[in-house]
This record gives sequence, structure tokens and C-alpha cells, in this order.
Amino acid sequence: MQPTGKMRYENFSDGVFAIAITLLALELHVPHFEGTTLRNSLTELIPLIPTILTYVLSFVTIAIFWVNHHQLTQNFTTINKRRMLWQNMVFLMFVTLIPFVTQSVSLNPQATLAVVFYSIVLCGASIAFTLLRYFVHKSCGEAHIPMKRSLVGPMFYIFAVLASVFSVWIAYGLLAIPAIFYFLPKGSALDTK
Amino acid sequence: MQPTGKMRYENFSDGVFAIAITLLALELHVPHFEGTTLRNSLTELIPLIPTILTYVLSFVTIAIFWVNHHQLTQNFTTINKRRMLWQNMVFLMFVTLIPFVTQSVSLNPQATLAVVFYSIVLCGASIAFTLLRYFVHKSCGEAHIPMKRSLVGPMFYIFAVLASVFSVWIAYGLLAIPAIFYFLPKGSALDTK
Amino acid sequence: MQPTGKMRYENFSDGVFAIAITLLALELHVPHFEGTTLRNSLTELIPLIPTILTYVLSFVTIAIFWVNHHQLTQNFTTINKRRMLWQNMVFLMFVTLIPFVTQSVSLNPQATLAVVFYSIVLCGASIAFTLLRYFVHKSCGEAHIPMKRSLVGPMFYIFAVLASVFSVWIAYGLLAIPAIFYFLPKGSALDTK
Amino acid sequence: MQPTGKMRYENFSDGVFAIAITLLALELHVPHFEGTTLRNSLTELIPLIPTILTYVLSFVTIAIFWVNHHQLTQNFTTINKRRMLWQNMVFLMFVTLIPFVTQSVSLNPQATLAVVFYSIVLCGASIAFTLLRYFVHKSCGEAHIPMKRSLVGPMFYIFAVLASVFSVWIAYGLLAIPAIFYFLPKGSALDTK
Repeated sequence: MQPTGKMRYENFSDGVFAIAITLLALELHVPHFEGTTLRNSLTELIPLIPTILTYVLSFVTIAIFWVNHHQLTQNFTTINKRRMLWQNMVFLMFVTLIPFVTQSVSLNPQATLAVVFYSIVLCGASIAFTLLRYFVHKSCGEAHIPMKRSLVGPMFYIFAVLASVFSVWIAYGLLAIPAIFYFLPKGSALDTK
Repeated sequence: MQPTGKMRYENFSDGVFAIAITLLALELHVPHFEGTTLRNSLTELIPLIPTILTYVLSFVTIAIFWVNHHQLTQNFTTINKRRMLWQNMVFLMFVTLIPFVTQSVSLNPQATLAVVFYSIVLCGASIAFTLLRYFVHKSCGEAHIPMKRSLVGPMFYIFAVLASVFSVWIAYGLLAIPAIFYFLPKGSALDTK
Repeated sequence: MQPTGKMRYENFSDGVFAIAITLLALELHVPHFEGTTLRNSLTELIPLIPTILTYVLSFVTIAIFWVNHHQLTQNFTTINKRRMLWQNMVFLMFVTLIPFVTQSVSLNPQATLAVVFYSIVLCGASIAFTLLRYFVHKSCGEAHIPMKRSLVGPMFYIFAVLASVFSVWIAYGLLAIPAIFYFLPKGSALDTK
Repeated sequence: MQPTGKMRYENFSDGVFAIAITLLALELHVPHFEGTTLRNSLTELIPLIPTILTYVLSFVTIAIFWVNHHQLTQNFTTINKRRMLWQNMVFLMFVTLIPFVTQSVSLNPQATLAVVFYSIVLCGASIAFTLLRYFVHKSCGEAHIPMKRSLVGPMFYIFAVLASVFSVWIAYGLLAIPAIFYFLPKGSALDTK
């Protein structure tokens, strides 16, 4: 493959991230508020709680992926391997599926299969990104590849896939851990690396 | 954090703004016009009036946020603080919610809860942007940060949140003020700074 | 206003164009094909014809606006007037409305009001773009502004708005003329300038 | 036509690709899982299989188009022919139709007409891209244009259009061949050029 600039690689990825993160909100279900006073309609809020929580979880997860992707592409200036394109595509495929599985989970918060799918998509995105990161660092010829921190995501997401078969609530808890872990700055209590 | 270029930061933000502002129109409800002559169908226009007004209000509000965000990023060339990424993400999260709350309000223009949500999202976006602006100016080492004009938005939006509980019409009025204020050029009658 | 680079101006506009032109297809109504053989289902194609024609008309119209916008922004490198931002925003507002009115017209191809709205949106986009073009050329200090060719669009679209009240078919014809006119290269039979 | 930079050309194309590939997932039909245990809901998975397969096929197809488009635009730095803009537009029109025909096919996997449309859209995109590639290489003044590999796509897609009239299953097989062929690296067993 002839080496090409990374600009369109970044632009295309940014486009996919931006659309996926914006569609999260589009997939929200608009309630038809029947009560016109506040007191009557507060009870209509309760079924919205799982929707709001999964929305925030998915938003933070995509945002973390973007921040990491943005820092990863600082490491190279040209693309000279087909694998760099295709590993990115596989990663982006899982990112584009996040709005879909988020909607599925927010409509059926207690359905095992919806939570299994949600966990599988987050797990797939996380593993694909870790492989992409490993490949980029390796092809930049770095001797020491800092992968320890990267493995937190895939590890917890795999546990979540397994747990979701038995209890959706444990799965939700496990899915939230990487989001909280990466959201907190390095060196905070949770990050003991 | 290693300093990174601001290009993807801007591209990603532009993508989110562009999608949010285009989805506003997508969320409009297509009426099934039954009358085939103009006279018969003019009466079908009346229920569309709140939809059109909230559409224009949301469009102008997002446009103002974009213009201000575009001027803000002129102040720096590299991103060297994690906070700059995450304050932007929180701001963009509120921007992506605008099409959703706009649709909710245009379907239920007199429902208190819809207007409360609409006000909260605009208020959240406005406060998140003001914090981002304050942080950018401070980390650029500017002694005098011109924040007076910035506080008009959050202030009126907070009033709108409070007012929406009692009267949706007062809330709509308060939500329109920042849009009109920032749309008018500096130095016009309304802008006495 | 402090002068700013045109890059985000172009990126944001390109984003809006790209989304609007892609949403055109999203707004198409997916038919539930009942016949599993070709002969049975060919009759299901007939109601799709107005949809396909309005889709192509809207696609070509947005494409022409993009080509012209792309050539217009070659004329300047910095943005130093607030009006350049806001005239662009008004133009983009009409562009974002095109997928919505296209869907409305393809669902109700004979409803007067749908065609009136479709004509008004195309007319608005055309007038807003002509004003933007005039302003850009003037602020670049050009003595001779080549506006003759620009006025074809607004002129026919205004006729279409007026005609749509009496006959939707004449309106469709008038709306197609600018698309064909600008699509053909300069110097062809239709372009006598 | 005055020569213009290729940046907006690439940005606009990237935007369309990014949205089309992300909308593929949006068009997926969210199942309302009724069974809350895994065993009950596994049977709900079976009708999803054609949806998942067509989703993956369309994703890989758009990804291949992007990779090739990204490599094509490396060959020029300015756009000085109207045809380069409009051949790209025709190609992008077919790309924007892919999410629509994918949804149509995943809802009616055995309907002849849905598969005919799906094949026509992929065939159109493939032919439009081959023409664009031919034109770009020719206008760069290259004596030897490597078109052999390019013709695999259009050829199989034309066969698929013809086959879809008789058997949807043969058509699906033929549509999958170019995706597999281009996905495999050059020099693998399938690629004998």
C-alpha cells in the first residue's frame, strides 16, 4: 500500500464518532406528556430513569473512545499499512452500533438479551480499540507499549457479557466501571497504575 | 497529558453541531395534508405554529453556540489539559440533547414538564459553555476575562427553568431573550455593555 | 469582530450539507413488498415514482448549492464580518429544511400546501445564497459582481411559489428548471449568458 | 472552471460516507424483547439473522468504497474539471441510498423487488466509482491506468442485478463476492491479478 496522509482517516473517524454520539439522543423516546401541571407529570418521569442512565453511560463511553482515539492518532503521520485502515473500520463498526443497542436497552431495561447485546457491542469496541492501539504502537517501533491501562476496559466488558446472562443489574454495574475509571484523571484513587 | 493539536477537537465539535442543527428539522412532524386545495389546508397550518417557533428558537440558539465556540477556539492552538476535552464533552452533550427536547416541546407545547426539560437543557448548555470559556481564557493566562456578556445566557435560562414550573408562556419568553440578545450585533440598543 | 480563519466555517457548512443530502434518502418511505415474485410487485412500484423524482430533484438541488458554496469560499481566507457568519446560517437553515419538505411532498405529491412549503424552502435557500454571494463579492472589493447567472434560481423559485397555489404540476416544472440549468455546463444551449 | 483545493471535496465526501455508514445501524429494527430470561428470548434472535448479515455486507461495502475513495484522492491536489465534482456527486448519491435499500432488504429478505433495488444501488455505486477512478487517472495524464482490479465490482454487481430476478439467494451470493474480494489483501489466493 502506498503511504497516505492521516487527515481523511481522522476526518472520517471524527464524523462517525460525532454522528454516533448525536444519534444517542435521537434514539431517546419522546414521551407524550399528558399532565399539563408539574405535579401530574412527575410520575411520568419514573419510566424515563433507565433511559437517562443508559444514555449518560453510552455518551461517556463514546466520549472516552474519542479521547483515546484522538490521542492515538498523534503517534503517526502517515498510514502505510492496510491493517491500520481495517482495524479502525472494525472498531468504528462497533461504535456505530452503540446508539442502536442503547435504544434497545433503554426500551427493555430488564430483558436479558438486550443487555447481552449491549455488553457485546461495548466489549467488541473495546477489544477492537485495544488491538488498534497495540498495532499502532508496535508499527511505530516502540519498545515499551503501555497496555496495562488499556486492558481495564476489555476485561470488565468481558465480565459484563458473562454476568448479563445471570443478572442484568450486575452487568450494568460492570459496564459502568470502565466509564468511571477512564473518566477520572490518572493518579486518582481508582487508578493505581 | 501530552499536548495535542486542536484540529480533531474542532472537527469533532463541528460534526456534533452540524448534526444537531440538521436533526432539528428531521424531528419535525410531517403533517399528512388532507386538503388538496390551498383553502382547505390553511386550517391545517395552525397546529404547526408552535413547532415552527420552537424550531427557529432552537436553530438560532445552536447557531449562537457554534459562533461563540468558533471564536473561543481561536484563543489556543494546542490542548494540554484534560479538562478542556471533558468540559467540551459536557457542553456537547447538552447540545446533542437540544433536538430531542425541541421535539418534545413542539409535540406538547403546553406541557409543563416538556418546557422544564427544554429550559434545563438550554440552561445546562449555557452554563457548560460559560465554564469552558472561563477555563480557556484562564489557562491562556489572560488577566482580564470578559465574562459579563457571557453571563446573560445562563442567567435568563435559570430564570426560565424556575418560571416554567408556574407558566410555560413566561418560560418561552425568557428562553427567547438570550437568542435575540446574542443575535443582535454588539452595540445595538439591547446590548448596553 | 476579530478576523478568524475560514476552516471551521467550511467544515461546519460541509457537515450540514453532507447530513442534509444523506437524510434525503433516510426520509424515503420503505415499502413493505408483499409480492415475492417480480411480476406481483412491479405494480407496487407505481406509487414510488413521485418519491423517486422528488428525491432526485432535491439531491441535485443540494448538490448544486454545495458546488456553488464551495466555489464561493475560494474568494476569501478570513472571516471579518458578523454578517458572513449569519447570512451563511440563514442559508444553511433552509438547506436543513430540504429533507423535511422533500418527505412532505413525496408523501402528499398532490397536496397544494406541501408543494407550497417545498417551493418556499427552495426559494428561501436560493435567495439567502444569492445574498451571501453578493455580500462576499462586495466585501472582497470586486467592482464587477457576476450576479446575472445567480438570479436564475431565485427567479424561477419565486414563480414556483406563486404557481403552486394554482397547479402543483406547473410548480414542479418550474422547480426543476434551475436544477437542470445549473447542472448543465456553462455555454450549453440553455445558458445563453 | 477555476481550479479549487480538494479539501472541501474530501471533507464533504467523508461526511457523506460517515453518515451513511452510521445510519446503517440506525435503520436496524429494535426488537421488543418479551422474554426476560435468556432461554425464552433466544428464539427471538432467529428473525434477526438476515438483518445482521445484510448490515455487515453493507458496512463492509461502504468501508471498501471509502478506502478506495481515500486512495483515489491522493492522486490529485486541485480540482479543475466540473466533471470531477459531478461524477463524485453521482457516486455519493448511490452511497447515500445504501442505508435505505439495506433496511428495505432486511425487512423483506425474500422479496424479489427489494433485492433487485439493493443490487441496482450497489451496482450503480460501483459503476459510478469506476468511472470516477478512470476519469481521475486519465486527467492526471497517466499512460497505464490499472483498471483490471476495478472491474471486479461492477461485473459481479451486474450479474447480481440479473440473478436477483430469478433467485434472491444467488443474488446475495454474488453481492458478497466483491466485498470479500476487496477485503482480502492484494496477492491472496482470490486476487490473481
